Amino acid sequence: MVNQINLNADMGEGFGAYDIGSDADLLTIVTSANVACGFHAGDPNVMHRVVTQAKERGVSVGAHPGFNDLLGFGRRRIEMKPSEVEYMIAYQIGALQAISALAGVKVTHVKAHGALHNMAAMDADLAMAIGRAIKAVDHNLIYLALAGSAMEKAGEKLGLPVAREAFVDRLYEDDGNLTSRKIPGAVIKDAKFASERVVRMVLDQEIVSRHGKKMPTRIDSLCVHGDEATAIAVARAARAALEAAQVRIVPLTAMGIA
Amino acid sequence: MVNQINLNADMGEGFGAYDIGSDADLLTIVTSANVACGFHAGDPNVMHRVVTQAKERGVSVGAHPGFNDLLGFGRRRIEMKPSEVEYMIAYQIGALQAISALAGVKVTHVKAHGALHNMAAMDADLAMAIGRAIKAVDHNLIYLALAGSAMEKAGEKLGLPVAREAFVDRLYEDDGNLTSRKIPGAVIKDAKFASERVVRMVLDQEIVSRHGKKMPTRIDSLCVHGDEATAIAVARAARAALEAAQVRIVPLTAMGIA
Amino acid sequence: MVNQINLNADMGEGFGAYDIGSDADLLTIVTSANVACGFHAGDPNVMHRVVTQAKERGVSVGAHPGFNDLLGFGRRRIEMKPSEVEYMIAYQIGALQAISALAGVKVTHVKAHGALHNMAAMDADLAMAIGRAIKAVDHNLIYLALAGSAMEKAGEKLGLPVAREAFVDRLYEDDGNLTSRKIPGAVIKDAKFASERVVRMVLDQEIVSRHGKKMPTRIDSLCVHGDEATAIAVARAARAALEAAQVRIVPLTAMGIA
Amino acid sequence: MVNQINLNADMGEGFGAYDIGSDADLLTIVTSANVACGFHAGDPNVMHRVVTQAKERGVSVGAHPGFNDLLGFGRRRIEMKPSEVEYMIAYQIGALQAISALAGVKVTHVKAHGALHNMAAMDADLAMAIGRAIKAVDHNLIYLALAGSAMEKAGEKLGLPVAREAFVDRLYEDDGNLTSRKIPGAVIKDAKFASERVVRMVLDQEIVSRHGKKMPTRIDSLCVHGDEATAIAVARAARAALEAAQVRIVPLTAMGIA
Repeated sequence: MVNQINLNADMGEGFGAYDIGSDADLLTIVTSANVACGFHAGDPNVMHRVVTQAKERGVSVGAHPGFNDLLGFGRRRIEMKPSEVEYMIAYQIGALQAISALAGVKVTHVKAHGALHNMAAMDADLAMAIGRAIKAVDHNLIYLALAGSAMEKAGEKLGLPVAREAFVDRLYEDDGNLTSRKIPGAVIKDAKFASERVVRMVLDQEIVSRHGKKMPTRIDSLCVHGDEATAIAVARAARAALEAAQVRIVPLTAMGIA
Repeated sequence: MVNQINLNADMGEGFGAYDIGSDADLLTIVTSANVACGFHAGDPNVMHRVVTQAKERGVSVGAHPGFNDLLGFGRRRIEMKPSEVEYMIAYQIGALQAISALAGVKVTHVKAHGALHNMAAMDADLAMAIGRAIKAVDHNLIYLALAGSAMEKAGEKLGLPVAREAFVDRLYEDDGNLTSRKIPGAVIKDAKFASERVVRMVLDQEIVSRHGKKMPTRIDSLCVHGDEATAIAVARAARAALEAAQVRIVPLTAMGIA
Repeated sequence: MVNQINLNADMGEGFGAYDIGSDADLLTIVTSANVACGFHAGDPNVMHRVVTQAKERGVSVGAHPGFNDLLGFGRRRIEMKPSEVEYMIAYQIGALQAISALAGVKVTHVKAHGALHNMAAMDADLAMAIGRAIKAVDHNLIYLALAGSAMEKAGEKLGLPVAREAFVDRLYEDDGNLTSRKIPGAVIKDAKFASERVVRMVLDQEIVSRHGKKMPTRIDSLCVHGDEATAIAVARAARAALEAAQVRIVPLTAMGIA
Repeated sequence: MVNQINLNADMGEGFGAYDIGSDADLLTIVTSANVACGFHAGDPNVMHRVVTQAKERGVSVGAHPGFNDLLGFGRRRIEMKPSEVEYMIAYQIGALQAISALAGVKVTHVKAHGALHNMAAMDADLAMAIGRAIKAVDHNLIYLALAGSAMEKAGEKLGLPVAREAFVDRLYEDDGNLTSRKIPGAVIKDAKFASERVVRMVLDQEIVSRHGKKMPTRIDSLCVHGDEATAIAVARAARAALEAAQVRIVPLTAMGIA
């Protein structure tokens, strides 16, 4: 019987004078933070601040590496050789590890961002490249991977600790991929609907597509967002519903993966 | 009696399609490489390549962090708070450590680049900020510091291993600082003059200013450059002269500092 | 008898996914917009959007060029040769002109941003470099310059139309420069105080320092800010007070300068 | 009977301390320069230098805009909406116009760079977006377009002056597109072969694919490259062969297009 789950969110996505997202709110909801590492967003100051705040709240810290595309916020696909992705991911993980060392924090997981995440979910070569970077830098780092994706398989193949992730506020297709944001309703904004759905997901360890197809899968972590007011409300409601269902919300490091 | 010395040079300062410097030549001359970390120059691909080449040649690898100013190649002074410098330096060291881990190499020293180097040579707060970043990331990293500078003092104060550096191809002022490049002759281009001078520097452990003032100092490492054809010739001649004087050229890690 | 004045504000300072400032609010208050040009902030999308919005509101458009330092938002001093500043300014003006052409708008003034503004206010060489860039690109562009600054003098010397600017929400020193933000009270947050002060400034064509020193000067334009809630309130109150004093608020192009 | 042709090359692709290509050599060969505009390469200093040099040699100047991807040198495909491409192209043209104004030069053509060029050759929406940007900024600017491409058609549709381009050192497929660089021999390195081929191309106004298919087309300009030693030799030989065949080599502005 599943009685605990991790909640993660992307954070530290400001840059210089710019701020974005709702880190302060998210830190009261999630138990693991995916910290941008300076390529699609983030800079050393922002990274240090969010890592320090995460530490204060007992939130575990992971690297959230993305494409080197600040203008596109890492959401635009860029063709890179797997070896180039490998170096790029290692670079970003190492950068966050060092900033975290300054703050007395240990980086414990890695989750790819944006277009890189979406590409590596389907592309075994990219998924392996990310995995090799993780393994070389620290083989105890948890590879936070979309449940059922090429990243999950790559992590397993490399013998890395893998956490399977599902999304609180996104619909799924029958093949287990996220419904494109271009399709109306792909992003769930109704807190009640999201909450009921997420409790069932966790208790049944099963993803249900928007067409009703049931896909059994282990789920270790739920991803929430902070981009919009509704996202925060959805996340907060989901957490409350999980707690009401006697599911404990714990850091990724407490999920018994590593 | 001094019978060994380290030779270091800045490397890996390309970016994307751009190449600069003479890494291949320098790797046949020096025993330690200061690798650009992606801020003033360098990118994950370049970093991985130079670290791999350094490993093949038995050249020890250090981080060469600079200001976030690719356009100015890190040679323009930028005002930053010491805490910001601290995070920025940690970021860059960590990035290189991770890239190096992929290549099976361990980063063993840190040397600041360009304008940041020149500012930290005189400014105790910046020198300490760099030192704190080094210490937090790995207290065994050698702080490669201009002999007599605020960086040397900061490294000592923090209990870090410190390597004192002198320059093969630069004149000195009476206060121990480098003569400004704006003054004619500040950069030594005569291989014979440089070679004789550098052998005396190492054997006497003494820097002599351009006005003839003698400044005794421990010298662990000599910095050479690869920007121009003359620089490579000067570096090669200096190495040959040192070897002719029975001085062994060793990696920084073999200098008995750490 | 002065019966009209221009109100200007910096706008379009977002970048990619990032937004900053209060463009929508400012566009209801000011009559001229200084549009960031992609170096310290801004990108082609943001520029096109703000220029289009300015056009809809009858707000005249100017270039707001700054240092190539997105991380520092153009607020950090960077040493550049005057010729380099000249090219950099021309580049940014031209970029905005072309974006504006797409939107059917004509760029009519130029105002330097941040650290570059502060440096050029005191440094005749930089002020002339900015002026030469303006003149070469379009000698009818208005050089919007801090009243009494080196920029005002450079504009006059080059025969450019010059608009003298004063600040609605900043205190002044006895030498006519802005009081440093580091000094408490340097930024005026009291709408009533700012309003009364600004009406007197305009009617008397006189700046009064924080020590009470009166400095007569022609004032063509008042700069307001949108960074904080108080800044918007101060700007709105200042506009209302000016209108109550029968001063018309007009675009820079209507000030009879060019 | 064709008795004149234009030769163009990409130039000014350095950045800060970085140099690349062979501008000095190319300026003795070509009659039109495509100048990088600061996104995939180039900066205000580099742009000013190359425009000044082009002026001295009587070489006409065009904008060579690319994706905002210095790391990838504009060679990586990035998904952008046509409107975004439109603003981005306008921005870069305007920037070069202003730099050119400082140097007393008029920009007279536009040629897209790298991945953007390749995408717009096939994609009518992108080709039109580039065309609209050109038209809004200056409808007399020549749209330099791959012969037979979507760019050629877009230019015609918009009523812009269009110059049809063929490549001196690249093989063609039967559909008129360039043979991918991944296919051996796609880049022609044999000066004699290239020279004979190019003379026939110009005199017959016909492109011949690598499989021998003949495709009649108007050819106004030939593109040469400067990336490698062989490229310069090929370009030089092609020019000599054309001159030997009584074909005059003229700036794009002298081709009777505009």
